[in-house]
Amino acid sequence: MKLLITGAGGFIGARLARALLARERLAGQRIDQTVLTDQVPLPPDLARDPRVDARIGPLLELCPGFAADRFDGVFHLASAVSGECEADFELGLRSNLDTTRALLDALRGGVTAGAPVPRLVFSSSVAVFGPDPSSPLPARVDDTTLPAPQTSYGTHKLMCEYLIADYTRKGFIDGRSARLMTVTVRPGRPNGAASSFFSGIIREPLAGVESICPVGPDVSHPLTSPARTVDGLIAVYEASREALGGRLALNLPAVNARVSDMLDALEAVAGREVRNRVRFVPDPVIAGIVANWPAGATATRAARLGLHPDDDFAAIIRQYIDDQRASPDGSAALAGLPANGGSA
Amino acid sequence: MKLLITGAGGFIGARLARALLARERLAGQRIDQTVLTDQVPLPPDLARDPRVDARIGPLLELCPGFAADRFDGVFHLASAVSGECEADFELGLRSNLDTTRALLDALRGGVTAGAPVPRLVFSSSVAVFGPDPSSPLPARVDDTTLPAPQTSYGTHKLMCEYLIADYTRKGFIDGRSARLMTVTVRPGRPNGAASSFFSGIIREPLAGVESICPVGPDVSHPLTSPARTVDGLIAVYEASREALGGRLALNLPAVNARVSDMLDALEAVAGREVRNRVRFVPDPVIAGIVANWPAGATATRAARLGLHPDDDFAAIIRQYIDDQRASPDGSAALAGLPANGGSA
Repeated sequence: MKLLITGAGGFIGARLARALLARERLAGQRIDQTVLTDQVPLPPDLARDPRVDARIGPLLELCPGFAADRFDGVFHLASAVSGECEADFELGLRSNLDTTRALLDALRGGVTAGAPVPRLVFSSSVAVFGPDPSSPLPARVDDTTLPAPQTSYGTHKLMCEYLIADYTRKGFIDGRSARLMTVTVRPGRPNGAASSFFSGIIREPLAGVESICPVGPDVSHPLTSPARTVDGLIAVYEASREALGGRLALNLPAVNARVSDMLDALEAVAGREVRNRVRFVPDPVIAGIVANWPAGATATRAARLGLHPDDDFAAIIRQYIDDQRASPDGSAALAGLPANGGSA
Repeated sequence: MKLLITGAGGFIGARLARALLARERLAGQRIDQTVLTDQVPLPPDLARDPRVDARIGPLLELCPGFAADRFDGVFHLASAVSGECEADFELGLRSNLDTTRALLDALRGGVTAGAPVPRLVFSSSVAVFGPDPSSPLPARVDDTTLPAPQTSYGTHKLMCEYLIADYTRKGFIDGRSARLMTVTVRPGRPNGAASSFFSGIIREPLAGVESICPVGPDVSHPLTSPARTVDGLIAVYEASREALGGRLALNLPAVNARVSDMLDALEAVAGREVRNRVRFVPDPVIAGIVANWPAGATATRAARLGLHPDDDFAAIIRQYIDDQRASPDGSAALAGLPANGGSA
């Protein structure tokens, strides 16, 4: 089979690409060709993998060429992030709406010309949910909660979910949309995203650096590890249409944790000294944004596919520690961790 | 104020244009300029009205020019209908998705250049609702029912609802989406639409012509008159943002009637002889399509705006009869009505 992953240079995309290259099979088929796209260069291990056909550039410009590729499978992860879309409205429309449409139309063009109908997994987001006066957020958003996105990012993700359902109904693709929960612990440096602290309050203390938590300890949110996210994307790809239980998007599993739960887990895994590197300094702007996010989520349909959340938030922290230990340049990321800390 | 109505040559669009030209005012402002667009010529009464600036042509091509118009208000009704979108996928995308996007971007361009933020009412549709295995249709769809469109038409309407909510959130428009119920009794001839019989089983018997009902007498559907539809569009325009109760689309009111209720009303209004012109000849294809439609709808938010459904289906029939009596060429449409029939 011939596989396409868009956004393969990103945090989840690269991890998904590595997982699929290691598996060598998907939905019972051997992966013969792997096309990875991103607008930035791929990580070195992917770039030098002889099985990878790397196509680097703006996805919107790459899409028309896909009609001739006859892809059997597609993971569409490429996306401008929430903060970028809020700062630049046209960038958001172009990157998240027009590009998905161009991808779908290229695939449709291929099918119309005789190519097999490709299976496609779209990475949607918990950001489709938000409070609206006519539809307040429940304590836990579920697969049937009415979306009311409060960002352009969430709006475009939701629109693409419905577009993908319709291209599927018409037989141009076999599409599925999986809503990713907030992925932690992201490596690297803090960024401008309002959600940055959900990783920062774990990552910085483990690196021996103080971290500011801009919201109160009772703030709750649906969280997931990168590994479970990748597992979820693959399982949604491999599921039969019947097992998916409908064309509408489904939530991926989440650990619903409060900030205080996250810090308790950090203390349990890494000790009190590490936890004490987090200081609470309320930021009304960030707190106001986060107040519009779901406090938790359930994933009934994903559970029927055998998908479950991480065991608890401590497991998410341990996964991050293990990842850093396995990384050639991960030692600085764990500079604040006691020698005996972080063991499972 | 300067007003734009797209699709003003259509059944509802022309009626809305006439109502607004007669009122001369909207939301407390005097209507100074009325721009009417359609891809077909306007009805003669509108075309010759000196207050009308008619712009005839494909809306997608007209949109860029709107940035300089500085519209204060917009009713966006132009749309390819459901059957057209199913028959021609690209036509549907272009007419119902790309055109709305182009309209919104033209308005955004105007606002960015200093024009006042226009208020916009978008005519969405009960077609956003459908059954999905993960979200079966309730007996009555309400303002908070999770949409699962089963047509490209419904998909594009829903996507535009969310796009309009986001342009509104960003301050580019003051947008509102109203979901129109199935409008009866449409004048004219039967068309290829699966819903055609909802008008046909009333219109043809009144004209003295036999009509075939392709579904059983127990099939139920949310129905509305053209007059109440126009009232609803205007009320949604005039409502304050607070009264609307949120950015999400709202249902317009409907009479939830079974086919048997419709025929009972026809008999009550026009007599048994007229009713007996309807014959039941099941059509499994049409029955299958209709089975995916809501059996009924409620309109809680619209009720808070003072909007209510027609009193009953008989009132909808009487409105049609009155309209035909007022029309210079309406006598043929009532050729089957007894002389004493149809009085309120």
